[in-house]
Amino acid sequence: MRMYDLITKKKHGEALTDAELAFMINGFVAGEIPDYQMSAMLMAIWIRGMDEHEIAELTKVMAASGDMIDLSPIPGKKVDKHSTGGVGDKTTLICAPIVAACGGKVAKMSGRGLGHTGGTIDKLEAIPGYNTTLSREKFMEIVKTLGVSVIGQSGNLAPADKKIYALRDVTATVDSIPLIASSIMSKKLAAGSDCILLDVKTGSGAFMKTIEDSIHLAKTMVSIGEAAGRRTVALITDMDVPLGQGIGNSLEVIESMEVLKGRGPKDLREVSLQLASNMLYLVGKGSPEECRALAEKAIADGSAFHTFEKMVTAQGGDASVLSDYSKFPQAPYKKDVVAERSGYITHMDAEAIGETSVILGAGRETKDAPIDFSAGLHLLKKYGDKVEKGEPIATLFTSKEDKLRESAKNYEAAITIGESAPAARPLVFARVEKTGVERY
Amino acid sequence: MRMYDLITKKKHGEALTDAELAFMINGFVAGEIPDYQMSAMLMAIWIRGMDEHEIAELTKVMAASGDMIDLSPIPGKKVDKHSTGGVGDKTTLICAPIVAACGGKVAKMSGRGLGHTGGTIDKLEAIPGYNTTLSREKFMEIVKTLGVSVIGQSGNLAPADKKIYALRDVTATVDSIPLIASSIMSKKLAAGSDCILLDVKTGSGAFMKTIEDSIHLAKTMVSIGEAAGRRTVALITDMDVPLGQGIGNSLEVIESMEVLKGRGPKDLREVSLQLASNMLYLVGKGSPEECRALAEKAIADGSAFHTFEKMVTAQGGDASVLSDYSKFPQAPYKKDVVAERSGYITHMDAEAIGETSVILGAGRETKDAPIDFSAGLHLLKKYGDKVEKGEPIATLFTSKEDKLRESAKNYEAAITIGESAPAARPLVFARVEKTGVERY
Repeated sequence: MRMYDLITKKKHGEALTDAELAFMINGFVAGEIPDYQMSAMLMAIWIRGMDEHEIAELTKVMAASGDMIDLSPIPGKKVDKHSTGGVGDKTTLICAPIVAACGGKVAKMSGRGLGHTGGTIDKLEAIPGYNTTLSREKFMEIVKTLGVSVIGQSGNLAPADKKIYALRDVTATVDSIPLIASSIMSKKLAAGSDCILLDVKTGSGAFMKTIEDSIHLAKTMVSIGEAAGRRTVALITDMDVPLGQGIGNSLEVIESMEVLKGRGPKDLREVSLQLASNMLYLVGKGSPEECRALAEKAIADGSAFHTFEKMVTAQGGDASVLSDYSKFPQAPYKKDVVAERSGYITHMDAEAIGETSVILGAGRETKDAPIDFSAGLHLLKKYGDKVEKGEPIATLFTSKEDKLRESAKNYEAAITIGESAPAARPLVFARVEKTGVERY
Repeated sequence: MRMYDLITKKKHGEALTDAELAFMINGFVAGEIPDYQMSAMLMAIWIRGMDEHEIAELTKVMAASGDMIDLSPIPGKKVDKHSTGGVGDKTTLICAPIVAACGGKVAKMSGRGLGHTGGTIDKLEAIPGYNTTLSREKFMEIVKTLGVSVIGQSGNLAPADKKIYALRDVTATVDSIPLIASSIMSKKLAAGSDCILLDVKTGSGAFMKTIEDSIHLAKTMVSIGEAAGRRTVALITDMDVPLGQGIGNSLEVIESMEVLKGRGPKDLREVSLQLASNMLYLVGKGSPEECRALAEKAIADGSAFHTFEKMVTAQGGDASVLSDYSKFPQAPYKKDVVAERSGYITHMDAEAIGETSVILGAGRETKDAPIDFSAGLHLLKKYGDKVEKGEPIATLFTSKEDKLRESAKNYEAAITIGESAPAARPLVFARVEKTGVERY
């Protein structure tokens, strides 16, 4: 078998066989297939696409290129969750303890943030003492006992994806549904859960800008998961506007705790409940309606919050901060951004708002840059809200006083104020399961 | 400017600007753009194509990436000739002296053979003493005096093409008309002639297997030449069957001399006359009909042959071999291949016949392999000829006795004998000029 012939097939739009996909991925990981051949193939895939079977098989060989985590020592169904990334997206911090409190098992490895979207691991590290690098044994032990543990990615998960992604990143082949779907799902398959709940974000702050593209990606990923024997559901959720009011690591932990305590912003609460209900549905806790009731109850009776507290303690963190937020390190500088005119907020550029949070110090611009956990934004007014000229619409928090002016300007530029109230946007646009797409 | 953005444009099927093409080619030659980005771009070009202006501009920047030969010290119009490569194609040896004898100027740099097609330089080196590596000054001096000199490619002509071709060769992006056309024409533009006659071969022994593809390639190359201010004409000629009867270096020189002496195979004579007439037309020697008459006269009065003799002498060769063929080194082993059955030759696989000549020693399988000038084939029967079972249809010549059997078998396999005479094939299918395509 020769990579040359595989490139020839794909450039003509033909499907690669299972054996050809394995040859290609294994050869590339082993360094036998050079970058220049793989990049020609990636471009051919970008333009010609792949069929459903090819994508599923590609994902399987990518997953099998490294460690395949065995979660079977943990009794019960394990459910993973993946978000395609958004601004202010702290739903894992809320869903994971809800699901655990209702008897689901969440053995979750999360990533760090890069660019305008934050990472769950960075958020958890805002909790003093929280250890995200547990041994595999300790991690499994906590999941067995408490039903949930969230740590950073460890081990050699899907090295094929890592190597291919590095090449896609420099050859303009990132934005391809077969390649995005196989990249995400290869890591999910390797991470070992029985079920996978996908949160595909759509809108200005998301990678997928349109609902149709988001549904296409969701269907592709659900098909991959099911082909690999994992029960998979995807929700298409709004990311035209940041989720909730807090953006920045400790601000997002605090806001998540508010939701777990039955308070917090409505949008965040609603999206989190829908995600958690579907995770419970996947692990067999009943119909979607029954699972929704379970999730709401876990908030109402405090069991979800207490589960989170226990997980923090088990992972070495100081759980007292979750009840006394003043114990979080506080940003030395803060500034209100005020409305430039009276009217209604008709647009919020979520990506630009995410970038503003990075400037304030809440995110990293390069891979190894440090993070200021106290930095970020608190959004006082959101999409659809009425504002008066001069009224504060957001508060900025930072340790870098010199960044306040630039950030305020950026935030103002990200907000559009119009004369009349805009149409309401749904929080969840669609739900994709093996059996079909349900649009809301 | 970033290569990443150029790849993005091309993957969406957009045209690159002149500045972008220059950035890409110059950056790639300078080693600033890595192979993996260029190969993604090549695949995007393979699939999305390029428009006429892009191809012309790409070719110009590729030509300008190295030496641009200045032939202006030679008075008169200089005409170059390029063949896309065929088996038994020795037309340069015939056309060049005809054109020079009629007052055209041919300052030609030719290539060596690789694979199943021979190279003009290898053929000329079959003439004892012939020097294909003259200094630029000596080369120009001979063209000034005799009207013609043929040497090997020297200097740093179109290094961008060399580097891009090496990458195309391993990324399955060779067979793209924009890339083939720009590759050929970049070298022709750099070689400095005012006019270019292209011989685009079509059929089983050619790179372009169909007439429509050949016409497409021809139109693309004519458009590039004209856009660069070079008068350009292309003929689409048959290469479904080898040209003439001799294949192999000294056999081809002898056959060319036969044509220059007014003898030789009809097909070779006709194709050579049409090519030479069009070269004369390009340098302004009259209408195509007038140029045809001039070319025929140069054969009839011996002036073309004598011009060739003088060129050989001027380049250090022993011109006496051109009149006494026995002075060529003779192959020690020869063998007739006989017809396996009676009937008509209905198909000759030109590519397989070219490969047979390589096995006999007439060509090189790797870039630096030596050549046996005496090796080759003499085709006694060709397409459409009636044969009797057991009658010799070709003679094989070699210095490697052990290759005779394999070669004879290969030759037999390359020939199809049928019951009835096949339809005659035209030798020249079409002529492409700036003004349009004339189909014969």
